[in-house]
Amino acid sequence: MSAAARFVTLEGIEGVGKTTQVARLSTALDARGIAHAVTREPGGTPLAESIRQVVLTAREEPLPPTAELLLMFAARAVHLANHIEPNLQAGRWVICDRFTDASYAYQGGGRQLSDEPIRELEHMVQGSRRPDLTILLDAPVQRALARAAARNAGSVQDRFETERKEFFERVRAVYQARAAAEPNRIVVVDAAQPVEEVSARILEHLKARSWIS
Amino acid sequence: MSAAARFVTLEGIEGVGKTTQVARLSTALDARGIAHAVTREPGGTPLAESIRQVVLTAREEPLPPTAELLLMFAARAVHLANHIEPNLQAGRWVICDRFTDASYAYQGGGRQLSDEPIRELEHMVQGSRRPDLTILLDAPVQRALARAAARNAGSVQDRFETERKEFFERVRAVYQARAAAEPNRIVVVDAAQPVEEVSARILEHLKARSWIS
Repeated sequence: MSAAARFVTLEGIEGVGKTTQVARLSTALDARGIAHAVTREPGGTPLAESIRQVVLTAREEPLPPTAELLLMFAARAVHLANHIEPNLQAGRWVICDRFTDASYAYQGGGRQLSDEPIRELEHMVQGSRRPDLTILLDAPVQRALARAAARNAGSVQDRFETERKEFFERVRAVYQARAAAEPNRIVVVDAAQPVEEVSARILEHLKARSWIS
Repeated sequence: MSAAARFVTLEGIEGVGKTTQVARLSTALDARGIAHAVTREPGGTPLAESIRQVVLTAREEPLPPTAELLLMFAARAVHLANHIEPNLQAGRWVICDRFTDASYAYQGGGRQLSDEPIRELEHMVQGSRRPDLTILLDAPVQRALARAAARNAGSVQDRFETERKEFFERVRAVYQARAAAEPNRIVVVDAAQPVEEVSARILEHLKARSWIS
């Protein structure tokens, strides 16, 4: 087993249980004495969260897709420089709820921007930094959205969560295509299973890499 | 004289009198019955102003130069789509206090980012849109900063205005180099002259193009 710090991201559409699984993964790492930071995108630092607020706040003035993409990568540049890289350099794992695969899936797939600007920004902001492992929590859109809606009952839904089902079908399709294209980095876990089963599958992927026992 | 709407930007370091000259140019256009919008960057719409606030607010957490650049272009994408282009399409001139030359000057020159990401973002956000005319108000840094300091006496200075003199020397040098490289688009006006003289020189440039009488 290597002691190297790992950069692990969890991806998937709303309602697949990312937040729950990030918390359960953190508990499993704690139980093994593995130092780690838990974070999320967009956001992850006070400054990046302030950029997240600009993106997610519903307002009358439209946010052009290119501007949304630039804000996402601005927040990511802050998050990488001020939180992710310092943790990895200090030997702590970083468990991140969403990263650049989400930009391809949401801005590319969902909002139908071309991949070219996303690739340019990925290079500009990350250089060669990529997650060591990405766990794609996958479930049928109807099922995931029903879960997200139940969770948000009585609360104000953010801008993304009011988008239509077809939007999330496009998002899911891009996630699946990326997993197929990069099977070594991105593993697909069936998120329609019970929560405990999903957690077990995630830990199996870490064990298979000899990152945990 | 053509009736086409013109996109005119004013550039220069702090304290050269851009705000004053934008106002005087607006008055001169009003006197000639030329419909126009006056705006500024970063900002220009409520959403773009909210991005401007993220950039200009002083805070403990550092803002990496690449993130600053991305925020500037995110605000610009909003400003172009929601304000500049609709005005030009409607036949109104747009007079803008700072635009993309400022990104080259401040982020490229001042913060010493390479030009490559700036050029990529310019293409991504603007396509082929460029100002029809850019007026560079030029003055020695020491003189301009003294004016900016007097203006801000007793107020909280924003993050840029606390930067050092060498920073502004680099900014000015990039502005001058860009004017030398694009003499048809960028005209240099000596901002150390009396305000009325500066205004007169600006109007002469518009008259020389037969845009105003």
